[in-house]
Amino acid sequence: MKYFEDFRVGEKATATAEYLVTEEEIVEFGSRFDPQPFHTDPVAAKESIFGSLVASSVHLFAMSVYFSRHLGAPTAAVRALGFDGMRMLAPARPGDRLFFRSETLLVRPSKSRPECGVIETRSDLFNQHDDTVMTYRGAFLVLRRETSDAAP
Amino acid sequence: MKYFEDFRVGEKATATAEYLVTEEEIVEFGSRFDPQPFHTDPVAAKESIFGSLVASSVHLFAMSVYFSRHLGAPTAAVRALGFDGMRMLAPARPGDRLFFRSETLLVRPSKSRPECGVIETRSDLFNQHDDTVMTYRGAFLVLRRETSDAAP
Repeated sequence: MKYFEDFRVGEKATATAEYLVTEEEIVEFGSRFDPQPFHTDPVAAKESIFGSLVASSVHLFAMSVYFSRHLGAPTAAVRALGFDGMRMLAPARPGDRLFFRSETLLVRPSKSRPECGVIETRSDLFNQHDDTVMTYRGAFLVLRRETSDAAP
Repeated sequence: MKYFEDFRVGEKATATAEYLVTEEEIVEFGSRFDPQPFHTDPVAAKESIFGSLVASSVHLFAMSVYFSRHLGAPTAAVRALGFDGMRMLAPARPGDRLFFRSETLLVRPSKSRPECGVIETRSDLFNQHDDTVMTYRGAFLVLRRETSDAAP
């Protein structure tokens, strides 16, 4: 487990996994949560500004959360506090391979929860051409090791 | 279709739908994208700070995107530009019923795309007790009606 004390500002990590974007998954996720033609209909998507099916923003966010579990030891995260600066910079199309990197931006004690600290990270989803597909900052409440060790 | 010209700052809308949070869906979505015990394991979740299964942040975001298609006429959205100020304020547990409201915060022409405008909205997911579960701001590129009518 990676605890609050293990985070260092400026530290970067790249996920040891890749995510193959498939037509089937774009359509399945899009149909369920974001049914716009460029997420659900391969033929209509060709006439859209994207020129093909593309993964929806929330699908990209879901992929990035999947990746965050593949950054080495799992984080003793208590919960996500919030996300900011989420930008979709390039589309993700069927056949694209996505990768993930994360950088620790800030490490501070929690004011309200002394057994925890707050970590802020930048997360980047990028593709096989090294184009950034999505970027965002996240803040997480993370357990301190000392508190955790003291717990029964 | 709701075009750029149809948006008014301060206008509010509530989705004509509700979303029943189920244990099955929390576990299915969590196992796939965010496999932490409080999203995937009903027994372990009882020992977590939440005291039960809770929907993951990205699952809540997906629900809110689903809701945004139930706000009346669909928006002629070209694409989402970004999301900010996303905060998770209350957990969503099995059996909770979620609702959705949206407010238009800003309406402006697009600098780079004259056939479009930019809309900024606040989105709130709230539960049967009227507690806000998640809130965020989103910016979207939306087609102008005039341009759309002129198109072949």
